Amino acid sequence: MTGTTTKTLPVVTTENRSARGPFLVVCEHASNHFPAAFGTLGLMPEARAAHIAWDPGALGLARGLSKALDAPLVSAGISRLVYDLNRPPHAPGAMTERSEVFDIPGNANLAEAERLRRTEAIYLPFHAALHAEIARRLASGRPPVIVTVHSFTPVYFGKNRKVELGLIHDADPTFARAVLIEAKARTGLDCRLNEPYSAADGVTHTLRLQATPYGLHHVMLEIRNDLLADDLAISAMTDGLAPVLTAALARIGTETNRKAAI
Amino acid sequence: MTGTTTKTLPVVTTENRSARGPFLVVCEHASNHFPAAFGTLGLMPEARAAHIAWDPGALGLARGLSKALDAPLVSAGISRLVYDLNRPPHAPGAMTERSEVFDIPGNANLAEAERLRRTEAIYLPFHAALHAEIARRLASGRPPVIVTVHSFTPVYFGKNRKVELGLIHDADPTFARAVLIEAKARTGLDCRLNEPYSAADGVTHTLRLQATPYGLHHVMLEIRNDLLADDLAISAMTDGLAPVLTAALARIGTETNRKAAI
Repeated sequence: MTGTTTKTLPVVTTENRSARGPFLVVCEHASNHFPAAFGTLGLMPEARAAHIAWDPGALGLARGLSKALDAPLVSAGISRLVYDLNRPPHAPGAMTERSEVFDIPGNANLAEAERLRRTEAIYLPFHAALHAEIARRLASGRPPVIVTVHSFTPVYFGKNRKVELGLIHDADPTFARAVLIEAKARTGLDCRLNEPYSAADGVTHTLRLQATPYGLHHVMLEIRNDLLADDLAISAMTDGLAPVLTAALARIGTETNRKAAI
Repeated sequence: MTGTTTKTLPVVTTENRSARGPFLVVCEHASNHFPAAFGTLGLMPEARAAHIAWDPGALGLARGLSKALDAPLVSAGISRLVYDLNRPPHAPGAMTERSEVFDIPGNANLAEAERLRRTEAIYLPFHAALHAEIARRLASGRPPVIVTVHSFTPVYFGKNRKVELGLIHDADPTFARAVLIEAKARTGLDCRLNEPYSAADGVTHTLRLQATPYGLHHVMLEIRNDLLADDLAISAMTDGLAPVLTAALARIGTETNRKAAI
């Protein structure tokens, strides 16, 4: 245990906590910060700035959606390479030894004590904070619709990806399908369900842990990160997607959410 | 908020934390304690001692199994009538207005602020503590088999229940079915799957929140409480069920647990 060192980590930030809208926005891969308590994992600055360390543009979009939808936002402040909050503690990807074409020297052959330290210092407090926001709303009779915001690299292992907006769901596809319909109708984006990957690839851990047990409607938004390259692009994407989410919720009806969630 | 008052509540106790066995035992309805911060809900002592307030005998059995199986035990220290930890915050049963033939005056028409206070003071810390124990074991590469221990009343709404041992599962029936086979072979109990109730009745919240998202093997043990009437009976039940659980795990193989859990 590092005691005071890990206690002051910027693990999780909750913004707009008293928001009254129907959505709750989550951004697990918001930051490429490498806190001193864990070091830089042997990575050069180039690797620490790359998509393997975070989801570039995702936090800006998540903040925009939080504001536009009057939704709380729960975001993380530590690089996914230190701990990927969208993975359970026993998944190899939680503290990955390799990401795309990069080796992560500081994650090679991690000792059990170090896996435990990161799980306790990062994974548990992040998910406890998110769980608290969800439980508060459940107790108040307002089951939230969970929207997780991610971005993906346009080129992966040298191959171009055509999809621009991926809509990914865990067990219940209802809301993601409604978002797909509205996004196709309201944006010019190449929108696809469960691309560039799906729950079968283990990418829906946050939804599985926090939304599915309560029967909450949910979607994981995956935006190709070249479409979030600067503030102007992020702002345009926010303006495009906020009405899509609202229309998708109207499409399925708020009543179904309440019924499913008990 | 009651501040210091709720901070000192006996919400959760973790025993045998450094145990090395494959199981993790949970007892949500261990106690019929009514802390001063919440009062006695207008109930007479008779009602506060009845099965509606707790699961009589369950804690003794859970402790026995924890010892026999070298398993950690996470138990609650507050009556289920103040907050039923096996229910999500928006379920009517979480802070129920009525249980079997008893009205619960202190739960009638609960204000949103009081639902929120109990959720934050009881539900969240209990499940955070349980989640921490599970995550620690996952980080150490030892996904635990979750065993929740409950007891039920032999007479419900005036009707006798014949079942003596109910084995209830959430999404994955694998382990519960193995326990059924071994319990039938090794005990003289009337054993049944998903009786006297099942996941469809909303009784598997703890498993759904804590075991299913990680693909952990699990079972909810429901023992008719006349079979746990005193220490001798509890000890005999412990001696009967501990080898049943061990044999059931051997039957399904530890490998399936590891595979399912990633």
